[in-house]
Amino acid sequence: MQTPAIQDFYPDDFSHCFGCGRLNATGHQIKTRFDGDETVTRFAPSSHHVALPGFVYGGLVASLIDCHAMATAAGAALRSGGNEVGAVPSPRYVTAQLNVSYLMPTPLGGELEIRGRVVEATPRKTRVEVTVAADGVVTAKGEVVAVPMPASMLRA
Amino acid sequence: MQTPAIQDFYPDDFSHCFGCGRLNATGHQIKTRFDGDETVTRFAPSSHHVALPGFVYGGLVASLIDCHAMATAAGAALRSGGNEVGAVPSPRYVTAQLNVSYLMPTPLGGELEIRGRVVEATPRKTRVEVTVAADGVVTAKGEVVAVPMPASMLRA
Repeated sequence: MQTPAIQDFYPDDFSHCFGCGRLNATGHQIKTRFDGDETVTRFAPSSHHVALPGFVYGGLVASLIDCHAMATAAGAALRSGGNEVGAVPSPRYVTAQLNVSYLMPTPLGGELEIRGRVVEATPRKTRVEVTVAADGVVTAKGEVVAVPMPASMLRA
Repeated sequence: MQTPAIQDFYPDDFSHCFGCGRLNATGHQIKTRFDGDETVTRFAPSSHHVALPGFVYGGLVASLIDCHAMATAAGAALRSGGNEVGAVPSPRYVTAQLNVSYLMPTPLGGELEIRGRVVEATPRKTRVEVTVAADGVVTAKGEVVAVPMPASMLRA
């Protein structure tokens, strides 16, 4: 049983991200949910998200890993504070470091499964490992460092 | 004086990339040119390419670094073969590893300057370093490993 989507509880002012903001009408609007201790997002790339014919654009793969990792860090922070997803607003994290290994071309046409897990969490940073799989085969791996949104990104 | 765009000489069959394919009508169609020994791309994010209000979506930053690095590797291969951009088709590289360091939030609203340079080139792989700057300030750095397109990505 999966939780509600972590991104659906970002504050409105921080819900415009092209990758995962529920208020960005032209964005991907990905949804990251806990599935046990891991997180999962499912996403079906569009036909124009192509790299070479038949394969998913690597920039999209990187983007999915990025937003999924930020939500995973937010979800972990919620749980470490004793809250489940949806009980309080999800905290907003931003990316400090994004490392993606493309293990093989990702076939275009089906739904991708993106899974994440926290491997280190301190008040200053959260490290998240992510896999991207097509038809059960992992095609890309990500290592992402998330940090709490700095005050410099707050605009009145 | 800059060269023509490296991507404009990718073979038609490999010109549909969402990030840089001239035949992808809905894509970014970025253009990478040599400027001396470095390469440069200029790109103005759209208002919907937002992360948090006022700042560029990190997935777009990663995507620009990725496609720019692939074209830089292709351009370097052209030159090491004694050709200038446009004299022969540009070879097609794909991404093996994409590492992005987000140094500070990238402000949304102006044109970004993406610059690349090859730091290692062997027949099997090319390593490219990339910077992304807004108003002359570098906001993100990339380290990218490019490899020649494998035969497995050729589809008749």
